[in-house]
Amino acid sequence: MSKRKFAIGVDFGTESGRAVLVEVATGKEIATAVYPYLHGVIDETLPGTKARLEPDWALQDPDDYIRTFKTTIPAVLKKSGVSADDVIGVGIDFTACTMLPVKADGAPLCTLPEFRKHPHAWVKLWKHHAAQPEADKINATARRMNQSWLNRYGGKISSEWFFSKTLQILDEASEIYAAADRLLEAADWVVWQLTGVETRNSCTAGYKALWSKREGFPGNAYFAALDPRLERVIDEKMSRAISPIGDCAGQLTAQAARWTGLKPGTAVAVANVDAHVSVPAATVVEPGRMVMIMGTSTCHMVLGKDEHLVPGICGYVEDGIIPGLFGYEAGQSCVGDHFAWFVENAVPPEYHALAKKRKADLHAVLEAEAAKLRPGESGLLALDWWNGNRSTLVDVDLTGLLLGATLATKAPEIYRALIEATAFGTRAIVEAFEQNGVPVNEFVTCGGLPEKNKLLMQIYADVTGRELKVTASKQTPALGSAMFGAVAAGSAAGGYASIFDAAQKMARLKKETFKPIPENQRVYEKLYAEYVALYDYFGRGANDVMKRLKHIKAESR
Amino acid sequence: MSKRKFAIGVDFGTESGRAVLVEVATGKEIATAVYPYLHGVIDETLPGTKARLEPDWALQDPDDYIRTFKTTIPAVLKKSGVSADDVIGVGIDFTACTMLPVKADGAPLCTLPEFRKHPHAWVKLWKHHAAQPEADKINATARRMNQSWLNRYGGKISSEWFFSKTLQILDEASEIYAAADRLLEAADWVVWQLTGVETRNSCTAGYKALWSKREGFPGNAYFAALDPRLERVIDEKMSRAISPIGDCAGQLTAQAARWTGLKPGTAVAVANVDAHVSVPAATVVEPGRMVMIMGTSTCHMVLGKDEHLVPGICGYVEDGIIPGLFGYEAGQSCVGDHFAWFVENAVPPEYHALAKKRKADLHAVLEAEAAKLRPGESGLLALDWWNGNRSTLVDVDLTGLLLGATLATKAPEIYRALIEATAFGTRAIVEAFEQNGVPVNEFVTCGGLPEKNKLLMQIYADVTGRELKVTASKQTPALGSAMFGAVAAGSAAGGYASIFDAAQKMARLKKETFKPIPENQRVYEKLYAEYVALYDYFGRGANDVMKRLKHIKAESR
Repeated sequence: MSKRKFAIGVDFGTESGRAVLVEVATGKEIATAVYPYLHGVIDETLPGTKARLEPDWALQDPDDYIRTFKTTIPAVLKKSGVSADDVIGVGIDFTACTMLPVKADGAPLCTLPEFRKHPHAWVKLWKHHAAQPEADKINATARRMNQSWLNRYGGKISSEWFFSKTLQILDEASEIYAAADRLLEAADWVVWQLTGVETRNSCTAGYKALWSKREGFPGNAYFAALDPRLERVIDEKMSRAISPIGDCAGQLTAQAARWTGLKPGTAVAVANVDAHVSVPAATVVEPGRMVMIMGTSTCHMVLGKDEHLVPGICGYVEDGIIPGLFGYEAGQSCVGDHFAWFVENAVPPEYHALAKKRKADLHAVLEAEAAKLRPGESGLLALDWWNGNRSTLVDVDLTGLLLGATLATKAPEIYRALIEATAFGTRAIVEAFEQNGVPVNEFVTCGGLPEKNKLLMQIYADVTGRELKVTASKQTPALGSAMFGAVAAGSAAGGYASIFDAAQKMARLKKETFKPIPENQRVYEKLYAEYVALYDYFGRGANDVMKRLKHIKAESR
Repeated sequence: MSKRKFAIGVDFGTESGRAVLVEVATGKEIATAVYPYLHGVIDETLPGTKARLEPDWALQDPDDYIRTFKTTIPAVLKKSGVSADDVIGVGIDFTACTMLPVKADGAPLCTLPEFRKHPHAWVKLWKHHAAQPEADKINATARRMNQSWLNRYGGKISSEWFFSKTLQILDEASEIYAAADRLLEAADWVVWQLTGVETRNSCTAGYKALWSKREGFPGNAYFAALDPRLERVIDEKMSRAISPIGDCAGQLTAQAARWTGLKPGTAVAVANVDAHVSVPAATVVEPGRMVMIMGTSTCHMVLGKDEHLVPGICGYVEDGIIPGLFGYEAGQSCVGDHFAWFVENAVPPEYHALAKKRKADLHAVLEAEAAKLRPGESGLLALDWWNGNRSTLVDVDLTGLLLGATLATKAPEIYRALIEATAFGTRAIVEAFEQNGVPVNEFVTCGGLPEKNKLLMQIYADVTGRELKVTASKQTPALGSAMFGAVAAGSAAGGYASIFDAAQKMARLKKETFKPIPENQRVYEKLYAEYVALYDYFGRGANDVMKRLKHIKAESR
């Protein structure tokens, strides 16, 4: 046994699982291994069948999660040369809400021959969007019954969430619902597979399953109103025992030790969500600093000491991110996707040729050209609603807007306007938080975009008037999970007593930061005022043209 | 001498001049010849000098007009084999306002050695846009002095018009103004060169120089208020004798006969404007049918028996198009230019590749793809203001808007939305006319677009609920000029007593027409209502964001 101790974080993504082996004392990432899921996202046909899935379905195979453990953990041990004796803890994070029905022993229904061909027996991935009617019913019923918990979620819950998916199973496959002894997050299921013990984490319970530390789940009467068969869903299929983030879920079983090459008895942390586990990995364990995970979409997370209702955010959960604090979450549904759409659909050949000539990708070329423009120089303004607006309007039926084009408008100007629009959208979120008692003093960013696009980072600083910092790790979720693994092991085993201690030692930021440039800020103040006027006009009912156009579009089919 | 009689129309365009020889009895176009101007549009340096012109300047060389006569008329005679004995009349049309300063004998100042290097001595082309300060002063002064004529022009006159250009000469080159014995439209100058007699036509006088049949020009007190030196401009440099369209201006001089190969004494019609002369060539000599000349921009012309103030149109002139009727003109500043901008700046390589594969141009590919969509299917709506709005808002500071984009939006959908936007813009113009007593029952179209884009034609029919017809001639201005040439010759010489008679015999429409499709109309009714709401919101002061963005843009420089 060496003095150096290690923890492993496993990050379960949409297309693959990734393990990172981290030195506990320093947070140094020693080795990484990725397992691309054999079945990836199942959205056309179930493995082994030819029956087509309905539109908007998205499933996964739980065996892919076990294969992730079996391949990536041995790989990082081997690559690093670290002994299993020196790995003190394991943490995992997952996409959410990604949920599945299982038997009492943990066997997923889809692994049983009698249910193998039944789509509802499989894991419903976070982006399974086929439960909108159920979400509508959940919202309408909650409003009718004046359910106060609805306020915690900005007044509306999503088709992606736990009870939308649960109700869809009940609506469309009551035999699956009946056969399921347990319904749970895949995050908790994989921890169960490692430890042999079912635990349920406060993060997914809070953000996705309407639970709160103070009030628990909605009452049985509410569930009965949704569907009489659902009345006792919590007690029959779920659990009221919710483990806070930062707890130890249990110890590695002998079987899991054989899968992974780790020692039986290794501490395993309570499961977490990829976005939320990134917060301490971004050094944030206190109020005032907002973490932005910026990729295809952006997730905004900030901690608060007190409970505040913030209209239009995704939700807030006590102990949801860091024990003892309220974790507030908001989001923008179209960020990287926005730029990707533009690059794919609206850039003329001259810039493609330029990219080829410069041996750069098209984003880099557009960024370089857009960076030559001064704020306001394009005369353009956009609403970043190409994929609806998550926060603060919580409205999927809003659509994109570009205003100010002339016959002289060029692609890099539009590209910059789209970046600016997402920055304005972030500012609208920040202002919603601040106006409701949750301060946001600076940003810590992680995800793909901050690495790739410095212009974007500067624009965000200029638009929001706040400094942007960047996490040192390129795999913050896995690092965060490893940190929770070290906390699960505890200080006596060479880990940490708390996530606060772990964050201090294991999480780091890059030295380079992005500070607001006053002369840019002055222009963006004016542009933001214009953005807000359009945001309110099109987003808050003064002119519902976007919804009516969607309606006309639907009718035209 | 043959029994068959012919007339020649000469159309002076922006880059070239064109002559068409037409059979008087049938309107059949026998021969065409084009002369590309040696000096084209002079917007960089004057011929023979290296001094750069200011931005927004656009000049022409009057010798190019004479060269047009000298080359194209002999060419059509030769090509057709028609004898000069059988050519009974000549008509011309010109871009407008295209004006120049000349000596009392008609010599352009720019042809005199002492003024050859002076930019203000040359012809100011219609698209010379450097006289905006002068236009502003003309408008402000007119408003201050409650000049009622301003209402005839939708409340605002343009920097392109006659007195804006005149005042610029006075402001910037008073020696040129002083040296000019006459200031006149190039249209009238070329007729003077053919006939040896100065005549001034009612069309340019009315549409570009604030003249009306009933009130004449604005009073001397108004001109004195603009600039004391301008007080007697009409009597000193212009003329109060205005000849109505359809009159004979005079007979070909011996010199002009030598230039052209025509017979001395051949009748020459009073000059006309390219757009306006197209109206009778499109068979329209009565109220109720709107002529649309659709190219880079669209010009809308309709006749009325009575005088009506129509807010936001370009202007109306009694005898301006057809003798005895009020000619109403409106316009859209961005039509073909709109689609050209899109094709050049926002179409990704896949459609370029498709065009190559199909050996079609990109417009044709986008049209074909857009034609597969049903009305409303894209969910998009645009405001066609990429180049401001001419009618009915008369506001160059308005800019383009695209609304309804999603991550699934494709280029052909945007292309179709831009076409639809221009159709909605035309409907807004038609409704302004109808609401103010000028009926529009159907359209007759000419210009480049109707030939090229059948989808566009159908969309216009569906959006406006009116039938669209297309002129048989592809060179309607020159045909129209030839018709006026035949009228100038008169019926005794084998021509016509009036433009009404000429139109009946010489002008024709294609058989193919575009009729509204009721199910499309139903959808477009809804979309047009949305367009109007945005048109009013952004165009009539509720939210002047477009102007503020332009202001911020100007400040950013």
